[in-house]
Amino acid sequence: MATMASLFLNTPTSSPSLPKTQKTLFVPPLTFTLPSRPTSKTRLKARISCGLIEPDGGKLVELFVEESHKDARKGQALGLPSIRLSTIDLQWVHVLSEGWASPLKGFMRESEFLQTLHFNSLRLGDGSVVNMSVPIVLAIDDSQKQRIGQESSVALLDDQNNPIAILKDIEIYKHNKEERIARTWGTTAPGLPYVEETITNAGNWLIGGDLEVIEPVKYNDGLDRFRLSPSELREEFTKRNADAVFAFQLRNPVHNGHALLMTDTRRRLLEMGYKNPILLLHPLGGYTKADDVPLSWRMKQHEKVLEDGVLDPETTVVSIFPSPMHYAGPTEVQWHAKARINAGANFYIVGRDPAGMGHPLEKRDLYDADHGKKVLSMAPGLERLSILPFRVAAYDKTQSKMAFFDPSRPQDFLFISGTKMRTLAKNRENPPDGFMCPGGWQVLVDYYESLTLSENGKVPVPVPA
Amino acid sequence: MATMASLFLNTPTSSPSLPKTQKTLFVPPLTFTLPSRPTSKTRLKARISCGLIEPDGGKLVELFVEESHKDARKGQALGLPSIRLSTIDLQWVHVLSEGWASPLKGFMRESEFLQTLHFNSLRLGDGSVVNMSVPIVLAIDDSQKQRIGQESSVALLDDQNNPIAILKDIEIYKHNKEERIARTWGTTAPGLPYVEETITNAGNWLIGGDLEVIEPVKYNDGLDRFRLSPSELREEFTKRNADAVFAFQLRNPVHNGHALLMTDTRRRLLEMGYKNPILLLHPLGGYTKADDVPLSWRMKQHEKVLEDGVLDPETTVVSIFPSPMHYAGPTEVQWHAKARINAGANFYIVGRDPAGMGHPLEKRDLYDADHGKKVLSMAPGLERLSILPFRVAAYDKTQSKMAFFDPSRPQDFLFISGTKMRTLAKNRENPPDGFMCPGGWQVLVDYYESLTLSENGKVPVPVPA
Repeated sequence: MATMASLFLNTPTSSPSLPKTQKTLFVPPLTFTLPSRPTSKTRLKARISCGLIEPDGGKLVELFVEESHKDARKGQALGLPSIRLSTIDLQWVHVLSEGWASPLKGFMRESEFLQTLHFNSLRLGDGSVVNMSVPIVLAIDDSQKQRIGQESSVALLDDQNNPIAILKDIEIYKHNKEERIARTWGTTAPGLPYVEETITNAGNWLIGGDLEVIEPVKYNDGLDRFRLSPSELREEFTKRNADAVFAFQLRNPVHNGHALLMTDTRRRLLEMGYKNPILLLHPLGGYTKADDVPLSWRMKQHEKVLEDGVLDPETTVVSIFPSPMHYAGPTEVQWHAKARINAGANFYIVGRDPAGMGHPLEKRDLYDADHGKKVLSMAPGLERLSILPFRVAAYDKTQSKMAFFDPSRPQDFLFISGTKMRTLAKNRENPPDGFMCPGGWQVLVDYYESLTLSENGKVPVPVPA
Repeated sequence: MATMASLFLNTPTSSPSLPKTQKTLFVPPLTFTLPSRPTSKTRLKARISCGLIEPDGGKLVELFVEESHKDARKGQALGLPSIRLSTIDLQWVHVLSEGWASPLKGFMRESEFLQTLHFNSLRLGDGSVVNMSVPIVLAIDDSQKQRIGQESSVALLDDQNNPIAILKDIEIYKHNKEERIARTWGTTAPGLPYVEETITNAGNWLIGGDLEVIEPVKYNDGLDRFRLSPSELREEFTKRNADAVFAFQLRNPVHNGHALLMTDTRRRLLEMGYKNPILLLHPLGGYTKADDVPLSWRMKQHEKVLEDGVLDPETTVVSIFPSPMHYAGPTEVQWHAKARINAGANFYIVGRDPAGMGHPLEKRDLYDADHGKKVLSMAPGLERLSILPFRVAAYDKTQSKMAFFDPSRPQDFLFISGTKMRTLAKNRENPPDGFMCPGGWQVLVDYYESLTLSENGKVPVPVPA
């Protein structure tokens, strides 16, 4: 592997957008030119005509207004009733606009919402079925509904009241929150993070329609260049002549067990006869719960891990998946997998208890740890995706490194849970050698220290990107 | 219509099985010979080879042990660990044994359970999909699980401890009650009747496997002869040269609005070009909640209504659907429809708020009244079934009869809710002329009177069949 320094020099889109704390560049931009965001549908067509897995519905949906129509749409938006979007609503606009949810063309109308809740899938006009397991919906309250009246379109505004999209041919329908929660999470226990954040206090109506996005969603946090759209990822995989793309979804720091798994997956794919399997290392970038490590810190941690040379930049693409997190276990893992089909992945690595969390009220995991991979392997619309279940990695004391667990000598293995890892990092203690590269570990320690400082000094410390 | 007297004379299977209170015979036995229950698979094959809609999975499943093997199976059952079944468990054995849930071959294993909860459907070996929306599962507790140990089969016993079936190649898996309830009902509110009856106090494990039924489930309530299996119904429809079968599920007394709807549906099917559409009037016979009118009274009421000549016995088959009731709205209506495909129906009439009820805690209906028909029309595995949504019937004061509601003159219509109907019957008051035939109404009045007598005199009055 080339040194970070030499790679650094090759970086095409360079430091202006990088925060000061970031000393080195991330792996993927080191080896490829970031494609510019597509602005017209004609460009898109060329981009997806490659040998990758087809997007759901056969065509990658992109919902951006063409450059030449932007001003007209902005003008139109100003004359429409408007809805100001929350941060999470905006993340969904981002997700929809780039086609992660293809063939969905906007926030769900009732027929899509009901199919999602009951069947985790949508039947298309031609009778084919695509997976769709989490509702992508926009809630409004009574007064907003009244303001919209008989209008057929509404303008969607960001937090600065700039119109960023128009929702057309709208349909307003009841938001039965209890039913939505029960069918999505399999519980209605109070304390589900996404529910408390976006549903509990949301309006009693949902508004669906076709989305026309005037301004692509940007976060200006120094990480936008890592937010490659499905179309951009497909272009990248094509450029690299990928004949298999395996996606690894994560929302936690990467330890050497993960790295082992990713490397081993590539080895297995080569054994299966693929010539050039490419890893999509794809941290989730949207809303996460308060005690998860924030995206900016995770990206720093991933960077250190990659610097450590465990993963080969030639065969790895690191990018940010813009979706918010539901923590809905077996229901959500389908969304995570489906979205990656749209980005060109035909293999999906699934771990123990994906998208799971502790039960909010009871002392147990909310979901059976095996249900995620079982449900995923049976899910309608995901038949084309090959599911690669995690092999369990643990710390092998005899080798002082992470290794696949060998049930014939359980005494040699140490399982370091997320909780254990966090406790160690908070206490500035080190994990056993070989659990995580020292640079990556230091990022975690720094993160928890920044939290302590913030709490003690009552001064909120901005999270560096 | 022929008089009841002359029809009575034609009755082939006559009075021995009839209770004393039953003065006249029911319509369907008047016009056809009750087929004997199939005892071998060879008989079955001949029976389903007709022009009716194919059963789910292509072949109607029947799970009865052949007569010649019965003794051997009984002997085998005596040597196995056993599970004593509840009344509702037995109803499910009945349902499974006759193939209402085809292609299901027994209580669900985990993969079927998970697909049911998440997708309301099962993917078969050949990649095709059948609908399956309610879990058909058998719960056991820790001590039962321990007793079963490593055995691969268990005996299922009735309440007299007679072995009635063997469950083979068993799989025991966790019974996550909260998740089951949330995903099936879309709520976890306490007070759901089926949940309180069968889940709340059930064991923490589910046991699935292949069912071999030694003794067909009988109720000896005078109504067994109305419990035609899917195979028997298919034979009957074939005998009648049905070119369309339209099913009407009900668990309430029939009023003239229902009758109008059924008659009108036949008219529409004739208009569509069918020559001989047959109505399957199919009251649900399994568990219902305490305040529903019990099956035996409903059957008496249906009989009176049919005597009244509103429905033509030549084109009507009345039979009992043995399933217990979940009251799970849009989820359950799929089960009701799917089971009728297996019985040969290719049209299904769906009303307002099917399988719905009031929210157990809140002052509202648990389900949106339109969701049932919407979900049904989009449900995977039900594409072959034509869904016929109810037209709303109400009492037309200008005509003194039930008629389709005319929105141009709403003031002329009276909506008589179930609650209103029950209140009138309890108070021995009459509904408006033309709402229900007097004989049918009298049955309802008698039923509520029997309840009052029972409550006042503290003497439980056995419900006449």
